[in-house]
Amino acid sequence: MSAAQLDASKLVITPVENPSKPLSNDKLVFGKTFTDHMLTIEWTKENGWDSPQIKPYGPLVLDPSAVVFHYAFELFEGMKAYRTEDNKITMFRPDMNMKRMNKSASRILLPNFDGEELIKLITKLIEQDKHLIPEGQGYSLYIRPTLIGTTSTLGVSTPDKALLFVICSPVGPYYKTGFQAVRLEATDYATRAWPGGCGDKKLGANYAPCVLPQLQAAERGYQQNLWLFGPEKNITEVGTMNCFFVFKDSTTGKKELVTAPLDGTILEGVTRDSILTLAKNKLDSNEWIISERYCNMHELKERAANGELIEAFGSGTAAIVSPIKEVGWNGEPIFVPLLPGEQSGALTKQVAQWIGDIQYGREKFDNWTRVITEL
Amino acid sequence: MSAAQLDASKLVITPVENPSKPLSNDKLVFGKTFTDHMLTIEWTKENGWDSPQIKPYGPLVLDPSAVVFHYAFELFEGMKAYRTEDNKITMFRPDMNMKRMNKSASRILLPNFDGEELIKLITKLIEQDKHLIPEGQGYSLYIRPTLIGTTSTLGVSTPDKALLFVICSPVGPYYKTGFQAVRLEATDYATRAWPGGCGDKKLGANYAPCVLPQLQAAERGYQQNLWLFGPEKNITEVGTMNCFFVFKDSTTGKKELVTAPLDGTILEGVTRDSILTLAKNKLDSNEWIISERYCNMHELKERAANGELIEAFGSGTAAIVSPIKEVGWNGEPIFVPLLPGEQSGALTKQVAQWIGDIQYGREKFDNWTRVITEL
Repeated sequence: MSAAQLDASKLVITPVENPSKPLSNDKLVFGKTFTDHMLTIEWTKENGWDSPQIKPYGPLVLDPSAVVFHYAFELFEGMKAYRTEDNKITMFRPDMNMKRMNKSASRILLPNFDGEELIKLITKLIEQDKHLIPEGQGYSLYIRPTLIGTTSTLGVSTPDKALLFVICSPVGPYYKTGFQAVRLEATDYATRAWPGGCGDKKLGANYAPCVLPQLQAAERGYQQNLWLFGPEKNITEVGTMNCFFVFKDSTTGKKELVTAPLDGTILEGVTRDSILTLAKNKLDSNEWIISERYCNMHELKERAANGELIEAFGSGTAAIVSPIKEVGWNGEPIFVPLLPGEQSGALTKQVAQWIGDIQYGREKFDNWTRVITEL
Repeated sequence: MSAAQLDASKLVITPVENPSKPLSNDKLVFGKTFTDHMLTIEWTKENGWDSPQIKPYGPLVLDPSAVVFHYAFELFEGMKAYRTEDNKITMFRPDMNMKRMNKSASRILLPNFDGEELIKLITKLIEQDKHLIPEGQGYSLYIRPTLIGTTSTLGVSTPDKALLFVICSPVGPYYKTGFQAVRLEATDYATRAWPGGCGDKKLGANYAPCVLPQLQAAERGYQQNLWLFGPEKNITEVGTMNCFFVFKDSTTGKKELVTAPLDGTILEGVTRDSILTLAKNKLDSNEWIISERYCNMHELKERAANGELIEAFGSGTAAIVSPIKEVGWNGEPIFVPLLPGEQSGALTKQVAQWIGDIQYGREKFDNWTRVITEL
């Protein structure tokens, strides 16, 4: 008998006895409170994917020798469900998350699965708790699919047992009172990722080691750190987000939107991809160049000095975009302009609007908005 | 009130009702079976270290949002307890493991502790199950102290809750029938560690990403992979062990023992340190040079061709030393000599003997052997 594929039709639902009431929007803290149910699916090498279970949110019970505790056999995704004005529930490009999750799994020998089956199961999970999806622009249900190796052994080898689980957290807008542009410290004493490493995958292993440099930047008064790579001081990412710059050539007047190329060290952000695609589609190509190339600290400093640096922002699922107003490098500030009296540049604002419109169903683009259920 | 320090005198022991019988020596598999008890100590930022608990071995119960599952807030140690011929139980340089464990913890913002207190607690844990420590040269009790972040949040930040636990597995000799020299594939498409990363710490994050390259080496017929770094193809580690080479200068006849320097990318192995110290102490300095320097693939190939490469071995707690007989590089073999009719070189054998004698109490060296209890 061959190992079973992930099959949404085998779902077993055990609902909670007393569904909880939604928190008021002002009480929502990112990733701190969760909905009533969770999805769990066990996998073994021998039998493949077991019947999916939707059951009351509750603790995982695991042997202390499980490889997830010792060798970081773990990966995750971050995605959201949105409540539209006409009371539909949408997801934004969930196929991209499924594709990336399988790539992350392959990198650390955890099992792959049919992404469309998992989307069906996540839909069922969301339906179960749909009264807990908050309402309003910027409010959403954050969805955290996670895959961990659960083999009980201290040997370092391919796991033969795994657990896929999905939990959901109702969340508010990243910036409660509109954008807040951040100050970054360019970090060249710590390195996030390396060629031949796994920085392009959403593995747990990429996260814990990044907190210390962020904390050290915070001690020096910065909100986040800007990751650099190599002797050229190439800018790779910002905190846990992809990073974009906008330059304006002072001779030609032409503008350029720049982000680091997917060379194996850069996380393959869904928001990153969406911004590049929308920019190519919506910006006038006579006025704009869209580039996947490295910008290094020397270029950044020089172009800021020449008045050619006109915007900078991070991108990710949590905030969509996070405007940057300053980069500290070797103790000296490089300032990034903002719109007068505002906390972002013009394109940063524009991008947030484009993506928000698609996520909340006000605009259609390609097949990016997927209506998964209705209220 | 300030947060409590780790305090062994607060230990609470809940023994199992029916202690298990030892497995016969031939049934022992590394890290697959565990002793009857485990040690757990909870930590919170607010209250510090809670009372240590020795209790029946059993599952951990953790919220699915615990940071250990998502961001690899986890680190471990590997150490052993040995049963001497006169029925004492010894540990080998446990202070070194405690020091390294605290360094690993600091790197990912998990709490530090007094290492001597944890050694006292581990001693109590071993006493509880001392009838399960196997007898005989090469047999021992493998001890796995582990520290995980347990804060329930999807935010990436410093954990404010943690769990330190220790589990023990009775183990046999790494090579049941004497040494088995291994064939390695030099891996230059994957990188284990890099400057500004965390490859020198015993973090879970360093392990899962290393299994794929090892598997790929295995598919091409090698037992392990040899990790390289940089354009010079410096040799850094072998699998999950430190790596040593022995050269003999064909002009001077002088021998050199070489291992990579602790430059931040190399695990600070206790066995590595012990080998360097013993070699400096026991080998004739007129005949030997002991070097912490990089050897690269070009040097290895050239010196093998000149007949100057005379031994190679990996080192670690599990095997002490693991002799190497071949390194495949770009599809071509570099052969390492072995003693005629044997599976290791002369120094490799010698080193295993030196360390075994100290671990099993047949020889004293410095304060490396610590008698922790008696049978």
